Amino acid sequence: MRTIVWDDDRDCVAMVDQTLLPAEYTTYHAETVADLVESIEVLRVRGAPALGAAGAYGVALAARRNDAASYDEFATAVRDDAERVAEARPTAVNLAREVEVVLDELDEAETIAAARDATLERAKAIADEDVARNRAIGEHGATLLEDGQTVMTHCNAGALATVDWGTALGVVYSAHEAGSSVDVIANETRPLNQGSRITTTELLEHDVETTLIPDNASGLCMQEGRVDAVVVGADRIVLDGGEAFGEQGVVFNKIGTYKHAVVADRHDVPFVVAAPTSTIDPDSTADEVEIERRDPAELREIYGSQNAPTDVDVYNPAFDATPMELVDYVVTERGVFEPPLDRAAVLGDEGQPTP
Amino acid sequence: MRTIVWDDDRDCVAMVDQTLLPAEYTTYHAETVADLVESIEVLRVRGAPALGAAGAYGVALAARRNDAASYDEFATAVRDDAERVAEARPTAVNLAREVEVVLDELDEAETIAAARDATLERAKAIADEDVARNRAIGEHGATLLEDGQTVMTHCNAGALATVDWGTALGVVYSAHEAGSSVDVIANETRPLNQGSRITTTELLEHDVETTLIPDNASGLCMQEGRVDAVVVGADRIVLDGGEAFGEQGVVFNKIGTYKHAVVADRHDVPFVVAAPTSTIDPDSTADEVEIERRDPAELREIYGSQNAPTDVDVYNPAFDATPMELVDYVVTERGVFEPPLDRAAVLGDEGQPTP
Repeated sequence: MRTIVWDDDRDCVAMVDQTLLPAEYTTYHAETVADLVESIEVLRVRGAPALGAAGAYGVALAARRNDAASYDEFATAVRDDAERVAEARPTAVNLAREVEVVLDELDEAETIAAARDATLERAKAIADEDVARNRAIGEHGATLLEDGQTVMTHCNAGALATVDWGTALGVVYSAHEAGSSVDVIANETRPLNQGSRITTTELLEHDVETTLIPDNASGLCMQEGRVDAVVVGADRIVLDGGEAFGEQGVVFNKIGTYKHAVVADRHDVPFVVAAPTSTIDPDSTADEVEIERRDPAELREIYGSQNAPTDVDVYNPAFDATPMELVDYVVTERGVFEPPLDRAAVLGDEGQPTP
Repeated sequence: MRTIVWDDDRDCVAMVDQTLLPAEYTTYHAETVADLVESIEVLRVRGAPALGAAGAYGVALAARRNDAASYDEFATAVRDDAERVAEARPTAVNLAREVEVVLDELDEAETIAAARDATLERAKAIADEDVARNRAIGEHGATLLEDGQTVMTHCNAGALATVDWGTALGVVYSAHEAGSSVDVIANETRPLNQGSRITTTELLEHDVETTLIPDNASGLCMQEGRVDAVVVGADRIVLDGGEAFGEQGVVFNKIGTYKHAVVADRHDVPFVVAAPTSTIDPDSTADEVEIERRDPAELREIYGSQNAPTDVDVYNPAFDATPMELVDYVVTERGVFEPPLDRAAVLGDEGQPTP
């Protein structure tokens, strides 16, 4: 099933409960707006594109659960609920953005019934667009791979971070769909272990031959010739590297990506970034991007067990910066691009990402 | 205190109980040979040089606990006990080697009392030699560092892997002793977390400013200019890289070392290997060295919690291979050497490591 979907039978949101991975792969039904807000807060659903769909469905859910007497009361209550959904994770841009998009339907509709239908239709369209975009990324990216090859990936840029199919892992699924059996080496991705917990789970669900490694072993794997390509997602791509990273721009992605890229470069292993055009930020330089520092507790404890002295200083950055000179291909829904990226080509005529 | 020492008051072996780190830093007394064997088996004491001392003290402990009627009976019983100690961890070369060295004292001695004294004296000398060797490594290595610099290290090549002082961390301690305040960035060192559990603990015990990072962040740290040198230990240094690694030889060390070296090379951060001459294997080529593959459970679970699907394939190599061309300095008790290493210079006139 999709990571997040509208369940027509139960008239509510259904999602893979990612808090139970890797032990259980089960579906959670968010029957109320409160259920959905909690699901976002506890990371039952995560990943920017999946959160966008969660926000969109959240507005539809609010509309369908509301029993106000007048349209004005209805619209006010739905907007209040939608705000709670949008604020469930404040830094997730997609979440707030898609909430706003679906809320626009309230201005168009004239009856509660019409608004309920329109918001749900719009939310479903947003989810479908995400899948279509990922399918396109996958199909373009799959042209870079051959039958029998092994792809290394980092973190989870898979179906479970999106509505379905994924970006980096979508490339693998599309390769399989096109008849190329491609295996995957998944890095554990410390400190939050998205690789071991989430990526391996979804790859096994998709019947992809998968090998889990500690992040420390990616270099040896390339040294030993086990890797034909590294394919990762991106959190943000800037086209101007600024003073620190040069003219070709920078890919910001999960911490550890940069090391894989440096070692891949040494071993002439192609390094591929698969991400939607919406990830491209054409207006910032790399110097302007602040890298989030996360909680020291993520290193001091693992799954509640003590992993370090409780008073040791910890530096726990969430992302790192891979200069575009180390990237061989950037794959978006628009095609495959070889850096240095031509702004007009990669973003289209308007030079701006798709909304 | 030393990692492992003879407690004269209690006439037994005393050691830092490393199974309790990082939660507790306490001393365990091995009163009997059985206590010592169990301590080695459960990794209460670990690290090749510390295990060498454990083996040496084990023979003395056997001699002092034995109450045989005749010298022959005594010697036979001590040899039996010594064999149990030597076999407590079969792959630890130092353990068996130092047991043999101390057992030689049984041939020399003529009375039980004399054998008890001679084995203990020899064991103490072996432990002292390890400390002296590490002190020499530290003093040579400290000449490479300046006051106010920050050293990055990997795994635990510290006091707790040796009798005292350590190799890579000994360089830091010697720098401090010489008046240079040097800070340390410690990599977590997945999958066994020696960096977060052991290295940070002993650095804080030595009042060294310490920052723990996930292995994935070492690249960003160098990118951000936080690292003045990388200093690591070595499990084995071969002088002939063979076909895979070229003429300059290879450093085998904890998995992840190679990635740090590749990134350090990119950022012109000096990469230093600190290890005793006994680590140098002049007779093998890198191709002949087999890299130990460890238990998949180390990735599938962390501290007993599930970290991955139970049926996912795992590749869990213990070591990787850093070509000597990425190493700027090799520091031994004989001095500081810049690769390519001159065999005669690094090993001495005989071209063989010290026994």
